[in-house]
Amino acid sequence: MPASYAYLGPEGTFTEVALRTLPEAATRELVPMVSVPAALDAVRNGEAEAAFVPIENSVEGGITTTLDELVAGEPLMIYREVLLSITFALLVRPDTKLSEIKTVTAHPAAQPQVRNWMKANLPDVVWESAASNADGARLVQEGRYDAAFAGEFAAAKYGLVPLETGIHDAENAQTRFVLVGRPARPAAPTGADKTSIVLWQRDDHPGGLRDLLGEFAVRGVNLMLLQSRPTGAGIGNYCFCIDAEGHISDRRVAETLMGLKRICLQVRFLGSYPRAGVRAEDVPTALPGTSDDEFVKASDWVARCQDGRF
Amino acid sequence: MPASYAYLGPEGTFTEVALRTLPEAATRELVPMVSVPAALDAVRNGEAEAAFVPIENSVEGGITTTLDELVAGEPLMIYREVLLSITFALLVRPDTKLSEIKTVTAHPAAQPQVRNWMKANLPDVVWESAASNADGARLVQEGRYDAAFAGEFAAAKYGLVPLETGIHDAENAQTRFVLVGRPARPAAPTGADKTSIVLWQRDDHPGGLRDLLGEFAVRGVNLMLLQSRPTGAGIGNYCFCIDAEGHISDRRVAETLMGLKRICLQVRFLGSYPRAGVRAEDVPTALPGTSDDEFVKASDWVARCQDGRF
Amino acid sequence: MPASYAYLGPEGTFTEVALRTLPEAATRELVPMVSVPAALDAVRNGEAEAAFVPIENSVEGGITTTLDELVAGEPLMIYREVLLSITFALLVRPDTKLSEIKTVTAHPAAQPQVRNWMKANLPDVVWESAASNADGARLVQEGRYDAAFAGEFAAAKYGLVPLETGIHDAENAQTRFVLVGRPARPAAPTGADKTSIVLWQRDDHPGGLRDLLGEFAVRGVNLMLLQSRPTGAGIGNYCFCIDAEGHISDRRVAETLMGLKRICLQVRFLGSYPRAGVRAEDVPTALPGTSDDEFVKASDWVARCQDGRF
Amino acid sequence: MPASYAYLGPEGTFTEVALRTLPEAATRELVPMVSVPAALDAVRNGEAEAAFVPIENSVEGGITTTLDELVAGEPLMIYREVLLSITFALLVRPDTKLSEIKTVTAHPAAQPQVRNWMKANLPDVVWESAASNADGARLVQEGRYDAAFAGEFAAAKYGLVPLETGIHDAENAQTRFVLVGRPARPAAPTGADKTSIVLWQRDDHPGGLRDLLGEFAVRGVNLMLLQSRPTGAGIGNYCFCIDAEGHISDRRVAETLMGLKRICLQVRFLGSYPRAGVRAEDVPTALPGTSDDEFVKASDWVARCQDGRF
Repeated sequence: MPASYAYLGPEGTFTEVALRTLPEAATRELVPMVSVPAALDAVRNGEAEAAFVPIENSVEGGITTTLDELVAGEPLMIYREVLLSITFALLVRPDTKLSEIKTVTAHPAAQPQVRNWMKANLPDVVWESAASNADGARLVQEGRYDAAFAGEFAAAKYGLVPLETGIHDAENAQTRFVLVGRPARPAAPTGADKTSIVLWQRDDHPGGLRDLLGEFAVRGVNLMLLQSRPTGAGIGNYCFCIDAEGHISDRRVAETLMGLKRICLQVRFLGSYPRAGVRAEDVPTALPGTSDDEFVKASDWVARCQDGRF
Repeated sequence: MPASYAYLGPEGTFTEVALRTLPEAATRELVPMVSVPAALDAVRNGEAEAAFVPIENSVEGGITTTLDELVAGEPLMIYREVLLSITFALLVRPDTKLSEIKTVTAHPAAQPQVRNWMKANLPDVVWESAASNADGARLVQEGRYDAAFAGEFAAAKYGLVPLETGIHDAENAQTRFVLVGRPARPAAPTGADKTSIVLWQRDDHPGGLRDLLGEFAVRGVNLMLLQSRPTGAGIGNYCFCIDAEGHISDRRVAETLMGLKRICLQVRFLGSYPRAGVRAEDVPTALPGTSDDEFVKASDWVARCQDGRF
Repeated sequence: MPASYAYLGPEGTFTEVALRTLPEAATRELVPMVSVPAALDAVRNGEAEAAFVPIENSVEGGITTTLDELVAGEPLMIYREVLLSITFALLVRPDTKLSEIKTVTAHPAAQPQVRNWMKANLPDVVWESAASNADGARLVQEGRYDAAFAGEFAAAKYGLVPLETGIHDAENAQTRFVLVGRPARPAAPTGADKTSIVLWQRDDHPGGLRDLLGEFAVRGVNLMLLQSRPTGAGIGNYCFCIDAEGHISDRRVAETLMGLKRICLQVRFLGSYPRAGVRAEDVPTALPGTSDDEFVKASDWVARCQDGRF
Repeated sequence: MPASYAYLGPEGTFTEVALRTLPEAATRELVPMVSVPAALDAVRNGEAEAAFVPIENSVEGGITTTLDELVAGEPLMIYREVLLSITFALLVRPDTKLSEIKTVTAHPAAQPQVRNWMKANLPDVVWESAASNADGARLVQEGRYDAAFAGEFAAAKYGLVPLETGIHDAENAQTRFVLVGRPARPAAPTGADKTSIVLWQRDDHPGGLRDLLGEFAVRGVNLMLLQSRPTGAGIGNYCFCIDAEGHISDRRVAETLMGLKRICLQVRFLGSYPRAGVRAEDVPTALPGTSDDEFVKASDWVARCQDGRF
């Protein structure tokens, strides 16, 4: 398997910074790609061992390009997730003063995070969109714009300096990234895990989605994320991207997946992997009756009943 | 094992008639007992191979003595059930005319079934209770009463004749009987089966009973009977005697029992056995997603996901 | 309305003792009746203002005669309930010694409460059933039996003395009695109330009973009792006698009753009345979102939405 | 109120075509705006009577800009919806041949609909993004690009001709648009209506979302759309944009909204309005027990119970 990770480029973006927090990234070649589909295609084609792409952020919600790529096409699996806090620096050429800035650039996704700061500090400046935050920095280096919003880490690479750092309109702004590979055995459970799936409903009746969620609830499995995505079968037809607490090797998760598989038109397993930023000791105990131990005991008891020994 | 069946006596009652409808009864010694507890104790003590007792009728509902005996004490299991339509004959000594009847007797349980008929046909007669319908017939034979309500089959035994037959205030009056033995492997599924259990709730919260019934509903298992019985822990404390469609070897039933075992304080398995009066071809198909085949496929799919092969 | 209360007689039974704990009983004529149906018929016929009858006990569960009378016939309503602890005294003629007792009597319902005590203290004695505990005491007075199990209060009336008191095999043995009248406006809520209803399901499908219980759960109304009783439409056909926490004037209870009325074949309202033995300050607060205040606010909000003012 | 409708411009886009299908648009001044927020701000500021914007399409799902604008800020209400099938024409200057096309342009949203067609028919052409499809047509008119994908209706306005029409990779590609105004009384129900709301959960527990959906299910209200949007409180925190069948003046919808209002942290009502493309006679009858008539009867019955008259 090629020892390379594809990631959503270019270099010098938040994605690269997030990727470098993974220990295994140190031993791989990191290859920037022009888009999420390009990064995931590299995995599907066998050109890359894995791809590292954003999947959710606190301002935009689910990254629909990533979700749609995981929902359709050759099956892929998520093996790791990384959470990164997003704050911007205002990068300028050395010696540029705030009052001299007439034009500013960044990727459009940066706008919700810097809009209020701009109103307060750069009210009359002209905004131009860049293909990426790193590309914006490059354009400032080339003199095309006066300033760029980007991660502070991008300054050095482009010979710029941060005039202001820690810019973030919304508190707790974070982006979640995932490391995606071809299907293989999931990593062993850590005690603080997450399982991702996609569900397609068999039909549409009152309470249909509730019945589907009932498969989780009756086994005490908590939902962490539910995002609807179009199925392509016409407006109003959606499948559901779901993140649930726990690992597929947990009995309650496995039985929930079985239940969903039985009642859904289709279920796609997207992996079980460690939750970023949560330690096993901080995960609440399973609800009464839903621990592995209780599952095993109940299963043994039914087996004894089937044999008439109890 | 002793080749005898104990049953709720005396001879000549509906219970004996029902018991004789079982082919296997022809090869056993049939031993009448004075009470349901006595019949079941004979099984528990090893004096009888099985006991045959009434468990439900259309007028009184669940026979509480039988239910309470099954709920508590050494575990027993149900292996067969029999449904018997209950209609009464008015038995008299030969040559007695309707107009000569001044006193009539029967077991109190007969009263709801003959009350209206008596009002219309014997308005001024005096009713006296007997220990059993057969005993009432005996007392008529002895000349103590003028007439007895009993099964028509009891006439010959006591030298009486039926003056009127087919007496039944309520249409569809039936009694259900069960053949009860010590725990052993349940009979193989027939396609029209029933599973009996007793449930004790772990605690009492709003929706507690609904959650418990949710274990059935989420797996498409239909409830046929739900009867509450006191736990003995004080007024308002009940356990639930439940009959559900299907056999413990059906995957949906087995998983339901596992779920109940996990969330209940206690579950007692009372057996899986053929439904009386229902043929396999008349049982509705399992709900979508709940057949054995779908369970197996779903289980296989989860196993493949756990291995990363799909 | 006649100022009399009918009750299940004869005099000197636990029922009379329970009835006399009601302050209003002091100003009524108390009329013993031979049976529960007779007592309730007296109310239906206008001969009595109300009837006082047992409805549940901790050994037998629901008193089926009483439940069946409330379920069918002219509608009646429950206005009060009384809880009475049941312990027996062994009543004998003065100077009788324990060793001299050869025969003992009582109503059959007493047996589960005294069986173990008898095994330990009167192992060889002969038991004979009496029509009521009071009647048993009378038969001892007449010399027909040596001893009777009855309430200690019955001793004086029949010239007997208690040889032993406080006999009760089961701890917490209690009987619940209700005061039943013709339909009228329920008593005002006290903060610790109970609502009794009877439900007939519209049809029978998997999850049917769960849906019905969902009407309670979704509005945070706790179930206190669920008893199935035959509908008379043949074996396996049941209606459900249900006690729920709260008063029909509570918004959550009223909306629950509306929901049940809509989805059930039939609903019979049996009254809202104070819970015996529970003070308002000991009743847990309504679940979040289910208080009267929250219902009123939500209703006002919907009305504003319907007007486009919000 | 100003007699103008703001809409997502520029002129000559699908949005304008969809808007002109509304009869009331004929009597208003139609004002193109540069963005969805700009169009909705015009309504909030009182500069426009209403705004017409896309809210969902079959390829992208919910239009997040529109949803986020409706979720936050001054409350707005939806009064109408329009469904438009989306097929593209390839517009060129007169006399341009297919083989002469080297560059093509359109809004990026057009790409998923024309990608396959391009691969098959224009494999080597260079794609450049335009600010809107209409703008792309203008740039072709100016000679900057050779061809533009746009609605066929845009040809005449820019002096172009359709070289090919009916281009659509996905069958059933549709966009849904809504007419949004300041809160006012919703239009009267038509029998084929839809109600839009936003829900914020009070807390996050296993089954929390299922409980929320239970408010719909228990009253037989069908869900048509469920889209999660970030609340702004950090990653993983979502509110739910929901479309449900029925009108707020339907009793089952009103009671559902009340239930949600009680258990949710917050509920925002976004309007009840006629469903596009559905006639009242094609809407399935309400489930048993959920019609207005049944609600009224149940409410009357509870009122009679509260009075003791039944």
